[in-house]
Order: sequence, then C-alpha cells, then structure tokens
Amino acid sequence: MVAFDVFAKQCPSRAVFSHVTGRWGALVLGKLSTTPQRFWELRKEVEGISDRMLTQTLKVLAGDGLVARAMSDEKPAHPEYALTPAGEAVANAVRALVDAVQDNMPEQVA
Amino acid sequence: MVAFDVFAKQCPSRAVFSHVTGRWGALVLGKLSTTPQRFWELRKEVEGISDRMLTQTLKVLAGDGLVARAMSDEKPAHPEYALTPAGEAVANAVRALVDAVQDNMPEQVA
Repeated sequence: MVAFDVFAKQCPSRAVFSHVTGRWGALVLGKLSTTPQRFWELRKEVEGISDRMLTQTLKVLAGDGLVARAMSDEKPAHPEYALTPAGEAVANAVRALVDAVQDNMPEQVA
Repeated sequence: MVAFDVFAKQCPSRAVFSHVTGRWGALVLGKLSTTPQRFWELRKEVEGISDRMLTQTLKVLAGDGLVARAMSDEKPAHPEYALTPAGEAVANAVRALVDAVQDNMPEQVA
C-alpha cells in the first residue's frame, strides 16, 4: 500500500482531495450522502450550481471512483447518481464537515 | 439558534463552508489540527502554497473565527497561528476528510 499524503504537491491524493473539497464537489458529495439522486434533484438541491458545473463535477468524482451513474430500482427505471463504497466513506466525512461548519458559525452571524 | 444550511445559496454558512473547503483553506486547517504553527512552517508544510495565498487564507479563516494569531509560550516568544475552539471542531472534521481521501484512493492509482 502506497502512503498517500494530500499535503504533498505531487501526490495523486492531492488531486482527489482538491476535487472533493472543490467549489461544488463537497456539496454534491454531501447531498449524495443521504440517498442516490437524479441529475435534476441534485441541480435543485445544491443551490447555485449550473447544469454545466454539475455535469463536470459528477464526471470528475466518477473519475475518482467516488460516484457512479446507474439505473434506479424503481419502475420505470431512470438514471441516477449514487456513491460507490469509497464515495460513501468520503461523503460521510464531508457530511461531518458540513455539520461541523454549521455548528460552529461565528456568534455574530448566528 | 438559527438553522444554518450550507446547501442554501444565501446562507452565511455557505461562505464559511467554501472557505473551509477552498483550494488552500482545507489544507491549512488540516495542518493546524496537529499543532499551532509559525507562518513559515505552514508555508513549508502545505506544499505549493505561496506567501500571498497563505496570508490571504489565514486572514479569511481568522475572519470566520476559526484561526487566531497569538504569541507562542516559548521564549523568545514568536507569533504563531492556532485554531480557536470552533476551528478545532472544523479542523478535526477536515482531518477526518483527509484520512478518508487518503484511505479511499482508486486502486489503479495505488
């Protein structure tokens, strides 16, 4: 097993970390951590993301092995996006970070 | 207590979340989660960050109430950057995310 180090500039984990913590990557992973979602559901729930940015974010996260597109179990089946097992682990950590931020907002704002 | 929601475009927590998950914010918080650091230590350990970006990142995180500059206990005392209690909570979550990414790299890379 290679030792990955996100703090090292050339480490491949640094690229994945930057996708996961990117402008939209973290929010998309956070939203997928509850349940698989259709494209338009993500588009609606991650407020402010454009079709183009969502398409690109999903493509990058799929390339990192964190997200996969699959047909739903419902009838009629429709395509939806879901976390892979690796994606689950990362998205749970993102969700914990979302909670930590929401729970630790400066008092002057709250 | 106001309910914060990072997924809502106008929520103030969205801005803090984007700082925390920004290009350098996450790495700086992750590094500070172990111990307070001097400017040049952070500059060296967060590979690739410039003086200018580190200055700006620390300023933004200080504005969010997550990081504070203080004099060290050592003699001679020197300025260093440390996490506030809110920063500790957020940085611990960042560190867990770092671990999740490092532990879940795609097999083709490892």
